[in-house]
Amino acid sequence: MKHRPVPARRDQFVQFLELTTRWSDNDAYGHINNVVYYAFFDAAVNQILIEAGVLDPVTSPIIGMVVETTCTHFASLKYPQRVEVGVSVEAIGRSSVRYKLAAFGAGEPAAAAQALYTHVYVDRATQKPVPIPEDVRAVLMRLQPA
Amino acid sequence: MKHRPVPARRDQFVQFLELTTRWSDNDAYGHINNVVYYAFFDAAVNQILIEAGVLDPVTSPIIGMVVETTCTHFASLKYPQRVEVGVSVEAIGRSSVRYKLAAFGAGEPAAAAQALYTHVYVDRATQKPVPIPEDVRAVLMRLQPA
Amino acid sequence: MKHRPVPARRDQFVQFLELTTRWSDNDAYGHINNVVYYAFFDAAVNQILIEAGVLDPVTSPIIGMVVETTCTHFASLKYPQRVEVGVSVEAIGRSSVRYKLAAFGAGEPAAAAQALYTHVYVDRATQKPVPIPEDVRAVLMRLQPA
Amino acid sequence: MKHRPVPARRDQFVQFLELTTRWSDNDAYGHINNVVYYAFFDAAVNQILIEAGVLDPVTSPIIGMVVETTCTHFASLKYPQRVEVGVSVEAIGRSSVRYKLAAFGAGEPAAAAQALYTHVYVDRATQKPVPIPEDVRAVLMRLQPA
Repeated sequence: MKHRPVPARRDQFVQFLELTTRWSDNDAYGHINNVVYYAFFDAAVNQILIEAGVLDPVTSPIIGMVVETTCTHFASLKYPQRVEVGVSVEAIGRSSVRYKLAAFGAGEPAAAAQALYTHVYVDRATQKPVPIPEDVRAVLMRLQPA
Repeated sequence: MKHRPVPARRDQFVQFLELTTRWSDNDAYGHINNVVYYAFFDAAVNQILIEAGVLDPVTSPIIGMVVETTCTHFASLKYPQRVEVGVSVEAIGRSSVRYKLAAFGAGEPAAAAQALYTHVYVDRATQKPVPIPEDVRAVLMRLQPA
Repeated sequence: MKHRPVPARRDQFVQFLELTTRWSDNDAYGHINNVVYYAFFDAAVNQILIEAGVLDPVTSPIIGMVVETTCTHFASLKYPQRVEVGVSVEAIGRSSVRYKLAAFGAGEPAAAAQALYTHVYVDRATQKPVPIPEDVRAVLMRLQPA
Repeated sequence: MKHRPVPARRDQFVQFLELTTRWSDNDAYGHINNVVYYAFFDAAVNQILIEAGVLDPVTSPIIGMVVETTCTHFASLKYPQRVEVGVSVEAIGRSSVRYKLAAFGAGEPAAAAQALYTHVYVDRATQKPVPIPEDVRAVLMRLQPA
């Protein structure tokens, strides 16, 4: 019904994380359910921020809230296959950042699914948008493709 | 970074399903995680098809595979709140159908989150696209707004 | 390998909560995955505490941590079936409470699965056991069978 | 309220699988939710069977159905920590097998949580118990501690 994007290649991503899959990821059709890919992407983005030391999910006073996501599927993956998630940052604004993400079957050159994922940074207490903290911004800038 | 859609109202949807939420839906920020909304939408679409008698997840030889989804978030919901999912069909092609969906806090007039969700019908064995079965198409047509 | 309990009947439970199921609850065998029953039980117990006003998941300084659960399965349920969870309290100690729980297919007299579920109350900051707060204890006592 | 087991040590398990954690595994208390441990155990047991070539989730005519599980928790783990699941087989009957499982924080000597997990083998079509297939039994026997 509209022009479909083409599967992303690995060289479009700055960082990769390897994730394991679970029995419960396969749905009644025997493949990883479409919803699970968003869990992969959520896992990858936040792991990078936490391991970089710029996010503590329990205490950080400024946090990224997801305001928009989209995912396009090209091929099926299935448990117990390992998944590699490619991460890059496509655009950084004052309060928001848009990631480009993709899930690859381990060792595969083309994405099985790819996504855009937008965080808006908010004050944890008021939920109002605030500027992206400088330490977070520095991490995000390193995730931009050359 | 781009024009944001406005929250959908209830009159944009043809059918509503009430879903309950779970402790595990709330993430470390105390709200329903963005990923869970896609599980709501998957639950709503397939429930309609199964209850209409046009889908058996275990035996149907032709099944809908999700090829693209997108979700925009406007407000937070949280367990143990009940959620109402509005469902309508926006476009029907030869092999594919695009749903418009939204999650409302119980009794709320404006969507907390709204989505587009595209199924392509495929042969279960070959995974190749096939025309939407006639009985499915009849159900989909009843989900189109007047 | 050991004596199996018999399925619980509805009259063994003090309170019931109705939960909806999701596409993602069915696993590759087409039935609700065993793990999901624990999510039902977690949802039911905490919903009762939250709706009674004795638990706020984000702010309560004393919280129940799960230290032991067990579930026995007698029959399969499957999405999009509704599930009714029976809840009663079997034992209340100084710091801990053991719930008896069961999942019934909507309208069914015998449990499809039943569980024991033990919370130990801890100080949220130190994670050390503390006495069950009095307001929580009052709710728990009302969940004991006559 | 009853005698608590002690945390298992690594030498009690025959095989280990490393699993990654996800943002959605942490609940509102900032730790991996108790339910998720059962997803880890389900993932580990079935991965061993699938990778040994004795289980195809979509086509195997004889499958293991979970009839009883129990899990005891000793310590909290949290995303994005890696988890190592220890697997051994404790008892093999004619139709059923009971696994002993534990989740360790990566590199930790003592289990954060440990479980018993019983599969009964059934005919996929009739759901009636049948003898454990010989190829499965051979895999299970190799998982028994020396």
